Amino acid sequence: MSEIRKAILVVSFGTSYEKTRKKTIDRIEECIRERFPAWKEYRAWTSGMIRQKIEKRDGIKIPDVKGALIQMAADGMTEVIVQPTHVLNGIENDQMQETVNTCRHLFSRVETGNPLLTTQEDNRRMIQIVSREMEPKSDEALVLMGHGTEHYANSIYAALDYQFKDMGYPNIFMGTVEAYPALDSLIRQVKEKNLEKVVLAPFMIVAGDHAENDLAGLEEDSWKSRFEKAGFAVTCVLKGLGEYAGVRELFLDHVLEAMKRGGMAEK
Amino acid sequence: MSEIRKAILVVSFGTSYEKTRKKTIDRIEECIRERFPAWKEYRAWTSGMIRQKIEKRDGIKIPDVKGALIQMAADGMTEVIVQPTHVLNGIENDQMQETVNTCRHLFSRVETGNPLLTTQEDNRRMIQIVSREMEPKSDEALVLMGHGTEHYANSIYAALDYQFKDMGYPNIFMGTVEAYPALDSLIRQVKEKNLEKVVLAPFMIVAGDHAENDLAGLEEDSWKSRFEKAGFAVTCVLKGLGEYAGVRELFLDHVLEAMKRGGMAEK
Amino acid sequence: MSEIRKAILVVSFGTSYEKTRKKTIDRIEECIRERFPAWKEYRAWTSGMIRQKIEKRDGIKIPDVKGALIQMAADGMTEVIVQPTHVLNGIENDQMQETVNTCRHLFSRVETGNPLLTTQEDNRRMIQIVSREMEPKSDEALVLMGHGTEHYANSIYAALDYQFKDMGYPNIFMGTVEAYPALDSLIRQVKEKNLEKVVLAPFMIVAGDHAENDLAGLEEDSWKSRFEKAGFAVTCVLKGLGEYAGVRELFLDHVLEAMKRGGMAEK
Amino acid sequence: MSEIRKAILVVSFGTSYEKTRKKTIDRIEECIRERFPAWKEYRAWTSGMIRQKIEKRDGIKIPDVKGALIQMAADGMTEVIVQPTHVLNGIENDQMQETVNTCRHLFSRVETGNPLLTTQEDNRRMIQIVSREMEPKSDEALVLMGHGTEHYANSIYAALDYQFKDMGYPNIFMGTVEAYPALDSLIRQVKEKNLEKVVLAPFMIVAGDHAENDLAGLEEDSWKSRFEKAGFAVTCVLKGLGEYAGVRELFLDHVLEAMKRGGMAEK
Repeated sequence: MSEIRKAILVVSFGTSYEKTRKKTIDRIEECIRERFPAWKEYRAWTSGMIRQKIEKRDGIKIPDVKGALIQMAADGMTEVIVQPTHVLNGIENDQMQETVNTCRHLFSRVETGNPLLTTQEDNRRMIQIVSREMEPKSDEALVLMGHGTEHYANSIYAALDYQFKDMGYPNIFMGTVEAYPALDSLIRQVKEKNLEKVVLAPFMIVAGDHAENDLAGLEEDSWKSRFEKAGFAVTCVLKGLGEYAGVRELFLDHVLEAMKRGGMAEK
Repeated sequence: MSEIRKAILVVSFGTSYEKTRKKTIDRIEECIRERFPAWKEYRAWTSGMIRQKIEKRDGIKIPDVKGALIQMAADGMTEVIVQPTHVLNGIENDQMQETVNTCRHLFSRVETGNPLLTTQEDNRRMIQIVSREMEPKSDEALVLMGHGTEHYANSIYAALDYQFKDMGYPNIFMGTVEAYPALDSLIRQVKEKNLEKVVLAPFMIVAGDHAENDLAGLEEDSWKSRFEKAGFAVTCVLKGLGEYAGVRELFLDHVLEAMKRGGMAEK
Repeated sequence: MSEIRKAILVVSFGTSYEKTRKKTIDRIEECIRERFPAWKEYRAWTSGMIRQKIEKRDGIKIPDVKGALIQMAADGMTEVIVQPTHVLNGIENDQMQETVNTCRHLFSRVETGNPLLTTQEDNRRMIQIVSREMEPKSDEALVLMGHGTEHYANSIYAALDYQFKDMGYPNIFMGTVEAYPALDSLIRQVKEKNLEKVVLAPFMIVAGDHAENDLAGLEEDSWKSRFEKAGFAVTCVLKGLGEYAGVRELFLDHVLEAMKRGGMAEK
Repeated sequence: MSEIRKAILVVSFGTSYEKTRKKTIDRIEECIRERFPAWKEYRAWTSGMIRQKIEKRDGIKIPDVKGALIQMAADGMTEVIVQPTHVLNGIENDQMQETVNTCRHLFSRVETGNPLLTTQEDNRRMIQIVSREMEPKSDEALVLMGHGTEHYANSIYAALDYQFKDMGYPNIFMGTVEAYPALDSLIRQVKEKNLEKVVLAPFMIVAGDHAENDLAGLEEDSWKSRFEKAGFAVTCVLKGLGEYAGVRELFLDHVLEAMKRGGMAEK
């Protein structure tokens, strides 16, 4: 009757790009399943638009956070970790947390894992992952494209740029599509360093729409076009953050910390 | 019966240093009173330790957020703005928000104003205020001491340092007492710029304990002592952020935005 | 800091009849004050219409339940008993309980006392009180006028009538102004008992408007007029239940039970 | 996406007596299904002991109220009626209502139907049903055995007895197993009427354990044995209230009223 049944809900924004999904969201979920075999795994996506698109196109119904939590409760789960694959503690994460709070009474224990970048230690590890995987050569700039948000958590982007430099990577730059730092100041900063080549890479879990269009697209206002127009030789590396083993390990550690915080046994 | 009675609750961490209090917390509250004469003003301090110290020492009881909200309800207030004087959206602000949520039902309308640094526009204005008031000379570094927090909002400090440079102030540096960026890397960074003089200033609303001791103290691990030991001529400017008119104006604007968001008439 | 401060909130429907108020609501409150000197006493009235009338007429502001609880919290009360003077567990009592629930977080401990008639033991004691004070002579009927409600708690009236008979008082009858049992069946039942005289008395805490008009009024549809028209000699005893010492003792016992349930020390 | 999906949750105490279950709980549910074909039907039982017994004995898992509501939400139900088969507004019904309140956010609309006996009109109809089905002959007493409760709703039993007499059925008596009125006073009252025969019948939805043992059992303290010992010829009619068409119709009307209160279309 009072048997413990454990489950991890992996919450992502979602993507309609199947190819990148397999290498990112699917892969993160796979790693969590392998690492925590005693826990059943569930998926939820926060983007209503993407969930509707997938349902129409592929006939596959992916639940939102509330729907997934209800299903987990209906399946008899009693101890639950909700682990977002969000990069930062922004709007989606706040909403996810609110939903989790209203559904708390459906379970014995519920704990939420941190987004990718929450503690200073997360930031430090992230910088190591990026520099290990993509350290630019001396005449190259690595320019990372984050999403950007109106939420105050947006300061993580400028802070990471600062910390790249502080940790010895003067040629790694961080920008955002929709907020600060924006493309113009990135181009200016790279110019000031007298570099000739630019490597562009998404700083998002999934290399989806933004990566394909805003970053590497042929339109004249894509980051690629703009940097080329500014005189740089541009290479695009369209790998989502979820494709890096280090990022997946960071998420696994966040799941583990949440289990500890919530007083739930790993096995 | 259904008369509207408006009040603004100004929430501060608090200070036991009477002199700086008069120039900062008291002054911010004074400005809010002058700017919004139709609103009654209340005070709450979040630090239990400081409130107890004041009560013991001066016999003055300053309420916490819950106590102040209850008093406001007992006084018949119906529309309430809760305006923190917090620098960032950290732990104190989250707790304040939670308390406000549990007391929401005591009023017709309640809205919370943003901490000093919330939007990108806030950051931009802050940089203008600091540079206008304290722009260092070409052989000087201005090093600002923030408090620092374990909360993910701590990234605002590195982000502000980044933005100072991005907005054309290469000699303004931002650090924290308790988090990242820490003193060691600040000293290193200032050295790299080949500057001879350092101006130290608190980046906290109140120039209290941290300013007097951690920043300007005679102990060998104060920022002053450490920069001097590193060979710099050091000047300390012990003014809290609350002493700058621009900062107070930023808070006034946050109060006004909260009124708009909450559908409350200014007059 | 963590001092215990105890208070009892006495919740009544309210009355605009000053004379009966002094003998009933005021008297119950007085007894509670005398019996529990360690507890501060507060008053709340649930009838908005009566509170407004009193404010207009006498300039006296009597709070509703929420207003009183907020004032108690503002005064620093930490342990609170809410004792209604309601006769039954009806609509006013449910609403009072809901308000208490939303304000629970304002105190360390809150417990609600039972209305006058809640347990079977309450009913038994009530029957003893009435029979001791007003037992009708053998040729008399005592007809009690309750208020009556649409709430399912209305069954208490017929149940009390049943229990009067069951406990050996065949000539005591219970009716209601607004619900079941109604006047017509009361007249019929009294007639069937071949009695000549009828004593009418309110079965309400306060002998106010209903007592003066619906019971003893000169209009032809008052209970007095109707019983007289039916051939009975009618006497009216316009004492509210609150005027009987036994009723006040029953309320005192409910306060005491609430303290025990809530784990609060009487002294 | 925003399709309306309607469901009725029928909440019963539960029974381990399969034979009576088929004629009562199953039958009520069947009638609700037939009457409201646009609504999906779910079952919940409140007795943990009975649910566990059934699971052990028959391998059938019947959910409690929370479990059923979660399943309904997981199945995509959006508009929900919760209809208890409880006789009165007692402890089980209060707990059911509380659970419904905490799960309210899982649906667009939720409304609770009344227990069998809630309004004065319910009581009136109940008396008609009983008298139509079981009116005793002039030398007979019909003695109904209710369950009885410590909840103040227990007054419904004495009130119904009163109302039977008031509506012209002096020989119908109402008692309870566990509360007031108890067996002793029933025997006394029947004796006072100079009747020779007694018909005993359960006044519970299901004719289960109480009916078989407390009412009709061979032990010397069963109601049958006690009435026989008092000199009466006793007949037992072991039909649960759920077996009467009139009772099922009353529940159907409560479902319908709940739909109206909740603003949900019947079809």
